[in-house]
Amino acid sequence: MPELRKDAVTDRWVVIATERSKRPHEFGRRREQVRRGVCPFCYGNESMTPPEIMAYRPYYAPNQEGWEVRVVPNKFPALRIEGNLDPGREVLYDRMNGVGAHEVIIESPQHNSSLGTHRLEQMEKIIWALRDRLVDLKRDVRLKYIQIFKNEGAEAGASLEHPHFQLIATPVIPQQISQELEGARRFFREKQRCVYCAMVDAERQMHERLVDVSPHFVAFCPYASRFPYEIWIVPRRHSHDFGDIQVEEVQDLAKVLKLAIRRLEVALENPPYNLVLHSAPNEGGYENYYHWHLEIVPRLTVIAGFELGTGYYINPTSPEVAAGIIKNVQVPLWQ
Amino acid sequence: MPELRKDAVTDRWVVIATERSKRPHEFGRRREQVRRGVCPFCYGNESMTPPEIMAYRPYYAPNQEGWEVRVVPNKFPALRIEGNLDPGREVLYDRMNGVGAHEVIIESPQHNSSLGTHRLEQMEKIIWALRDRLVDLKRDVRLKYIQIFKNEGAEAGASLEHPHFQLIATPVIPQQISQELEGARRFFREKQRCVYCAMVDAERQMHERLVDVSPHFVAFCPYASRFPYEIWIVPRRHSHDFGDIQVEEVQDLAKVLKLAIRRLEVALENPPYNLVLHSAPNEGGYENYYHWHLEIVPRLTVIAGFELGTGYYINPTSPEVAAGIIKNVQVPLWQ
Repeated sequence: MPELRKDAVTDRWVVIATERSKRPHEFGRRREQVRRGVCPFCYGNESMTPPEIMAYRPYYAPNQEGWEVRVVPNKFPALRIEGNLDPGREVLYDRMNGVGAHEVIIESPQHNSSLGTHRLEQMEKIIWALRDRLVDLKRDVRLKYIQIFKNEGAEAGASLEHPHFQLIATPVIPQQISQELEGARRFFREKQRCVYCAMVDAERQMHERLVDVSPHFVAFCPYASRFPYEIWIVPRRHSHDFGDIQVEEVQDLAKVLKLAIRRLEVALENPPYNLVLHSAPNEGGYENYYHWHLEIVPRLTVIAGFELGTGYYINPTSPEVAAGIIKNVQVPLWQ
Repeated sequence: MPELRKDAVTDRWVVIATERSKRPHEFGRRREQVRRGVCPFCYGNESMTPPEIMAYRPYYAPNQEGWEVRVVPNKFPALRIEGNLDPGREVLYDRMNGVGAHEVIIESPQHNSSLGTHRLEQMEKIIWALRDRLVDLKRDVRLKYIQIFKNEGAEAGASLEHPHFQLIATPVIPQQISQELEGARRFFREKQRCVYCAMVDAERQMHERLVDVSPHFVAFCPYASRFPYEIWIVPRRHSHDFGDIQVEEVQDLAKVLKLAIRRLEVALENPPYNLVLHSAPNEGGYENYYHWHLEIVPRLTVIAGFELGTGYYINPTSPEVAAGIIKNVQVPLWQ
């Protein structure tokens, strides 16, 4: 059973996932290449994953090929859905059982496709699948926060190259999310306005960091970008919850997200990147002041001692320069 | 001039260091090897660095060879010592000039030595040099926090392989440091005790995460280790300020630090790692409840989307297993 342990000083919890344990020499320190061999996410290999949680397919045949998007439990879960938290204290330290969820959302049967090259109808299905999992897991009252993310490329933490998202649901609201919520709440109290709505207005007005504006979304390089070529995609309609996304927004996000990733793939030659969804925690009360959005961070720089010590980042490329380059990338439009 | 920019929502500042700017294709995404060629930190190449800030040498000959430890400004500084902060606001966003300091502490003239292989008298000189720079920079009232750190290996962010520490002084106290201070203050208020003193006692009592105990320091794998084989070195005497280290503590730390690094070098085959010094900010008021210490984090795992989104870490090796392996490494003792 994985275990959650809290730092004695700060509110930082750590997942000790011993089932992923490795002996010292087993760490693939320099895994330039993602593992090759038989891919458990390709058609015909459905039995290599745990039984599916959900899949979109034209006819009912669970754990068989024919699916369009497939969701399975992570084979080496950081957190497990079964069990009780049994919180406790060991002398100075707080701990609880590693109860939560860890799922893999396989984006497509196509091993060599990517978020920048999927067909638009496939992109829509992926977005619906993420939304469906979020909505479903929100019903489990033990889960406080659901982190949807994507690791693309070994330097961004991917261990399999077949395109996929992951989802980890935690039994506590992470401190970093609390800080974001608290910052948004402070702004709302002072200005009677959502800070992300204000940011969308400011970026459209200033224009120099803007990458794309669509009917329902704005894509821009954020003012305080931590990473070179960081892009945020923010819905223009105020909504705290990604689970509340509407049909026309899904169709539009499919285009905007594909375009943003394609721009990065072309400008930076298929860079490693992480995509992180920010959406409100499962409990209520965030409706007025929080605003869901996507953060895409190419991993061209290394998180080093300064960043680990301070939580501050050094970014060698200003977002104005980054936006200028990204938005001028010639990419074929919607297909 | 580098620029400090604050995220509109959280208190996270980012350093936009445009002088380090790179075009998209210049990022060494997969720099398995640290740059080779003529080393600016070796004897005879003193003119390749900016003029030295300080050096230990047996006779006075600045910027000539013969030094034992040498401190120079970083050639591509994230923050600069000259200028005024000129804090300002751009529509929604706070900014200030990138005033601070960014120095390099060259550990030894020996290009191929390491913290695990320096002679003990060299280790002592390195520790004194770090202490001297901290004490000196604390006199600059513009500087609020001084982060001393070391990046070893490309995966940990090193761009030169000649052994060196770095120091970055920031004009704000980083949010992550504030959280640590606040956690320590809360514990002190509740228990009338320093949390790090309590941790040293608990680890000595429980024993299972203990790596080394010396007359003045304790080395252990922390309960909520973020990284496999993470080691903390904590002084047994309560002190909030590394600048206050005493002669006998420097001598002892030289041994304990060398031993800890050597253990990692042997057990993990010269892993990439970061070493991060935690010491109180420059302003007063932390004497009772803060406690300086060193955190050493091998970089065997990748900081991925989950970690970036939540600030939580997934660690596949429990600190109890790690300590068991590390402390049984056979290393030649003090020399």
